[in-house]
Amino acid sequence: MNSFGRNFRITSFGESHGVGIGVVIDGCPPRMDLDIQDIQPFLDRRRPGTSLLTSSRKEEDKIEILSGIFEGKTTGAPIALLVRNLDQQSKDYEEFREKFRPGHADLTWQEKYGIRDHRGGGRSSGRETIGRVAAGAVAVKFLSAQGISITGKILAVHGKTDPAEIQKEILRAKESGDSVGGIVEITARGCPSGLGDPVFGKLDALIASAMMGIGAVKGVEIGDGFAVAGMFGSENNDPLTKDGFSSNHAGGILGGISSGQDIVVRIAVKPTPSIEKTQKTRDIHGNTTEISVKGRHDPCIVPRIVPVAEAMIALVLIDCVLEREKYQKIP
Amino acid sequence: MNSFGRNFRITSFGESHGVGIGVVIDGCPPRMDLDIQDIQPFLDRRRPGTSLLTSSRKEEDKIEILSGIFEGKTTGAPIALLVRNLDQQSKDYEEFREKFRPGHADLTWQEKYGIRDHRGGGRSSGRETIGRVAAGAVAVKFLSAQGISITGKILAVHGKTDPAEIQKEILRAKESGDSVGGIVEITARGCPSGLGDPVFGKLDALIASAMMGIGAVKGVEIGDGFAVAGMFGSENNDPLTKDGFSSNHAGGILGGISSGQDIVVRIAVKPTPSIEKTQKTRDIHGNTTEISVKGRHDPCIVPRIVPVAEAMIALVLIDCVLEREKYQKIP
Amino acid sequence: MNSFGRNFRITSFGESHGVGIGVVIDGCPPRMDLDIQDIQPFLDRRRPGTSLLTSSRKEEDKIEILSGIFEGKTTGAPIALLVRNLDQQSKDYEEFREKFRPGHADLTWQEKYGIRDHRGGGRSSGRETIGRVAAGAVAVKFLSAQGISITGKILAVHGKTDPAEIQKEILRAKESGDSVGGIVEITARGCPSGLGDPVFGKLDALIASAMMGIGAVKGVEIGDGFAVAGMFGSENNDPLTKDGFSSNHAGGILGGISSGQDIVVRIAVKPTPSIEKTQKTRDIHGNTTEISVKGRHDPCIVPRIVPVAEAMIALVLIDCVLEREKYQKIP
Amino acid sequence: MNSFGRNFRITSFGESHGVGIGVVIDGCPPRMDLDIQDIQPFLDRRRPGTSLLTSSRKEEDKIEILSGIFEGKTTGAPIALLVRNLDQQSKDYEEFREKFRPGHADLTWQEKYGIRDHRGGGRSSGRETIGRVAAGAVAVKFLSAQGISITGKILAVHGKTDPAEIQKEILRAKESGDSVGGIVEITARGCPSGLGDPVFGKLDALIASAMMGIGAVKGVEIGDGFAVAGMFGSENNDPLTKDGFSSNHAGGILGGISSGQDIVVRIAVKPTPSIEKTQKTRDIHGNTTEISVKGRHDPCIVPRIVPVAEAMIALVLIDCVLEREKYQKIP
Repeated sequence: MNSFGRNFRITSFGESHGVGIGVVIDGCPPRMDLDIQDIQPFLDRRRPGTSLLTSSRKEEDKIEILSGIFEGKTTGAPIALLVRNLDQQSKDYEEFREKFRPGHADLTWQEKYGIRDHRGGGRSSGRETIGRVAAGAVAVKFLSAQGISITGKILAVHGKTDPAEIQKEILRAKESGDSVGGIVEITARGCPSGLGDPVFGKLDALIASAMMGIGAVKGVEIGDGFAVAGMFGSENNDPLTKDGFSSNHAGGILGGISSGQDIVVRIAVKPTPSIEKTQKTRDIHGNTTEISVKGRHDPCIVPRIVPVAEAMIALVLIDCVLEREKYQKIP
Repeated sequence: MNSFGRNFRITSFGESHGVGIGVVIDGCPPRMDLDIQDIQPFLDRRRPGTSLLTSSRKEEDKIEILSGIFEGKTTGAPIALLVRNLDQQSKDYEEFREKFRPGHADLTWQEKYGIRDHRGGGRSSGRETIGRVAAGAVAVKFLSAQGISITGKILAVHGKTDPAEIQKEILRAKESGDSVGGIVEITARGCPSGLGDPVFGKLDALIASAMMGIGAVKGVEIGDGFAVAGMFGSENNDPLTKDGFSSNHAGGILGGISSGQDIVVRIAVKPTPSIEKTQKTRDIHGNTTEISVKGRHDPCIVPRIVPVAEAMIALVLIDCVLEREKYQKIP
Repeated sequence: MNSFGRNFRITSFGESHGVGIGVVIDGCPPRMDLDIQDIQPFLDRRRPGTSLLTSSRKEEDKIEILSGIFEGKTTGAPIALLVRNLDQQSKDYEEFREKFRPGHADLTWQEKYGIRDHRGGGRSSGRETIGRVAAGAVAVKFLSAQGISITGKILAVHGKTDPAEIQKEILRAKESGDSVGGIVEITARGCPSGLGDPVFGKLDALIASAMMGIGAVKGVEIGDGFAVAGMFGSENNDPLTKDGFSSNHAGGILGGISSGQDIVVRIAVKPTPSIEKTQKTRDIHGNTTEISVKGRHDPCIVPRIVPVAEAMIALVLIDCVLEREKYQKIP
Repeated sequence: MNSFGRNFRITSFGESHGVGIGVVIDGCPPRMDLDIQDIQPFLDRRRPGTSLLTSSRKEEDKIEILSGIFEGKTTGAPIALLVRNLDQQSKDYEEFREKFRPGHADLTWQEKYGIRDHRGGGRSSGRETIGRVAAGAVAVKFLSAQGISITGKILAVHGKTDPAEIQKEILRAKESGDSVGGIVEITARGCPSGLGDPVFGKLDALIASAMMGIGAVKGVEIGDGFAVAGMFGSENNDPLTKDGFSSNHAGGILGGISSGQDIVVRIAVKPTPSIEKTQKTRDIHGNTTEISVKGRHDPCIVPRIVPVAEAMIALVLIDCVLEREKYQKIP
């Protein structure tokens, strides 16, 4: 499945070392101003090659709008967006045609489909998130007009919380041919109450699915998250007065439905599985072998996951906002 | 949305104090032996009134099969299951017609739909999970025949891990008119590789959605979960040899697809929001007021969430097993 | 698949000779007055045993509301409806356990699922339409409040158009152990423009699917229908003036989207396949044999299809009305 | 909605006078040989400018594969296909910015979305079917390997059935600034039994939706179609013997499920609404005006609908074949 969302539905396509990466948005509201400048800055934030801390792959990630816009406005037709790949160095990956990289989708893709594009992870590459970020930018534009904003930030990398220390930690990992993980927090402000459904389309379930659906994410929590396991009900409940809630342990969601408070989400990001350090692995013939994943890899994917996580939250929220419209004025 | 799943699709209905709770399963494979005895034991495990630690509501939760079975076998037709409510004491809830219980869906349901069945939480009650557990039982039967088993257990309640201490902790909370949360771990063994899709239908995303879609769950993690944030790639990657994986930090899922290892999931369960301790809240007229939620509530929902979480994992897995069939023999 | 609709989504269950027939409506707008009297009259119209022209099966078809209504109003929760079967005479069908009735789903169900409930067609019985009619009644109530009405009528039976002749034709077929087909026309009045999507969710495509999805329907046409094949564009186009359209050859739909004119649909209904006249058929052992389908069958299903076709049109229209809401006020 | 299908799901995008027309196929089986030569011939069949009988728009309609193929084989990743528009003459359409063309989606699109790309019909252009034909070509390749073939033919144009007379009829209409309609028949041979679901995903309902979802189609019938209205059951039923069916009045579908016989479908195609003859219409200011639709239009769309209808049938069939896989070997 390469689609996400019910109302603002995106369909993503493309591989790391193919022609490019794209996305089709189906269900974008009509009559909205939209041009490339609404989208490109979001791609620039997730683009590689911008610092020592990220992959040195040189990609401009220039977005092309293929459809859905007429004289600067959305028309209700699907919006197709495409970024062409420029800096594929497929030869770097020749070794991985026969060897499965630990911690990657190489083995499981092969076992599922019986065939695999080994170049840069193919469809399972982080480059796939270009489509999400591009579609997310359109969602962000819509949500902004509704007073909703989404901000992500790094809470910690490998146990460090200070930005300077985080930078040092990442460079140290890079130098030792290793990688590190971390934690990202995303906050959505200005959401109306009433987003999300009470049983299976719970807003928190949609968010959890969106977050865990980002490669490298191994945990999701909302509001107090795992800390609730050690709390009393009298601590965890958010008292309510005529002026609103007195606290936000719930992270803005009650019974699967937004309460109007800030929506607060944290995700755990694993260390990049591509490391130079030698690891044991298997080849496609079933033999044990060794592997050192050289090339242009991020020693820490945490910073580049921030815009992706923001985009996914935006996609969930726009979907719920449109869903809610159905029942607003009726009967 | 009251449906879950693409291939083994369940649709749930019913309220805590209405006629009953039911579920329709659409997509159950035909020619499978199935009768009430395959389902009832699962409902008995989640049923209230079985110990001092749970709600004293007296419900037999006897399941009735309304359709889909012919001479003891599934036919490919939808299987409708119904449990009638017996012990509704709606009067207990009269106070909550006008007051929103903190930590519940009362306020958000009202704001979303402009109307609310206040009796026992209506559709947002924990009783809604009867449908999930009943459908999950059918899934479990199917999965067992494929060699897949699912087991949940309590890891901790309010910081305690020893069963005796956990029991004491719950009783202590009950006596003080309070409640406590905890952590549950579910393990699925015997899964084939190839379950889950690489981009938006990732197995971990489906699991996250299923878990966070259970009321009271505020966090989900898979494999090492939040601990990955403090790890090196060289620690977190699972080395592979000709004999398989040497460790299981990934929790059985790589790139969104099952690897054949055990699938390991942990969830954080919040303290039951219904507590006798007096809390501040708002009434439907917008005034600040106080509330003490008396009645038949679990002081800790953790034990009763175990069968629900197992059921949801079973529903995710059967869905992925059927999805995978589509691409096995072709072309 | 036993569900229909995107926004007002119904899931149907039950068999002709099982416990009963039911339907779950997911997505009904909240705050709508609804009780049994809104639904029962629609079921009474499709019920058997009401005249010499229909099956003599005695079914009261009393509807029970299992969920979704609170103090006389919809709440946004799923509405489950159940009609219990009373007058099953399963023994009548014992012969068909081994013999496939021509023109029925007996053979194809067996080949698809490898198992079959032979009693009265099981899930493929016309009784399955109870769920559609019940859900359609809820849709009709909603649409009425929006000024939309739906009326079906018999255009012809076995070539006759006069009601008295139609009645004679049906009785004559019955006496000779045979059956006859006919044509039904359904008109929806008061629809706003803007229902339906321009490419794959075209209103006419949704209607065609809904109509051809009724057992016994073999043809669907909209507006001038098959007659367009013999027309010039200058005849078929509906001229437009400042006062609206001058004609309605299009049947109320242009480019897949309603135009505000009456929506006009005709369907071809095949003669009931259950006939007493002896026919050649095959048994489950692969032998050629003969069959005479005795029992309580309608010699002409056309009159009883009218309320079913109306219900299906109502289900399509409510779905499109809710879909349209999403894009009305935004941005 | 711009997607079609459950398992082999296509998402279409693009406008007549935008950058191009494209489609994303999600769910194509992996390990299938596929290259441009499997697709281009199908596009060449539907392409304009190939004879006096069709539009003179000069489009090469060269397909580009953007994703999903690796070393000549499908990988399980989505296949994105793009045809760039070359010969847009948008100025031809300037008049229609303000005037609604009768028989077109101009008015209804405007009323639905409040904005409209007037150039060549925008998204409602016949060029949109490029995506369907391209995706259909992939489906055809898959189905061929399963022994399934699909053939369409023109049965009649404006009442004529002889090819030479049909050609004359079309030229005569063209010369008089008018257009004509007709009937197309599509036959699918070699289908296994068991395709389609018994209630809402009936094969005939899916086909009806697919056919009526083609612009200009106003009627669909299967097997004997509308003729059943004048038949006796004893005529219409297909007798069965140990050697199979003795006739095929049903058109290959019983109870919504394929029987293994040829699937036979006929569609009514309306005369092209774009005609030079002067017609009354309305402008966007609400005034009555006149319009003569000059430019490069097909005087009869029937021949060019044949490959589109074949493609849509192929898309329905592949979807059902994949769906059927889920329940073949289990349990």
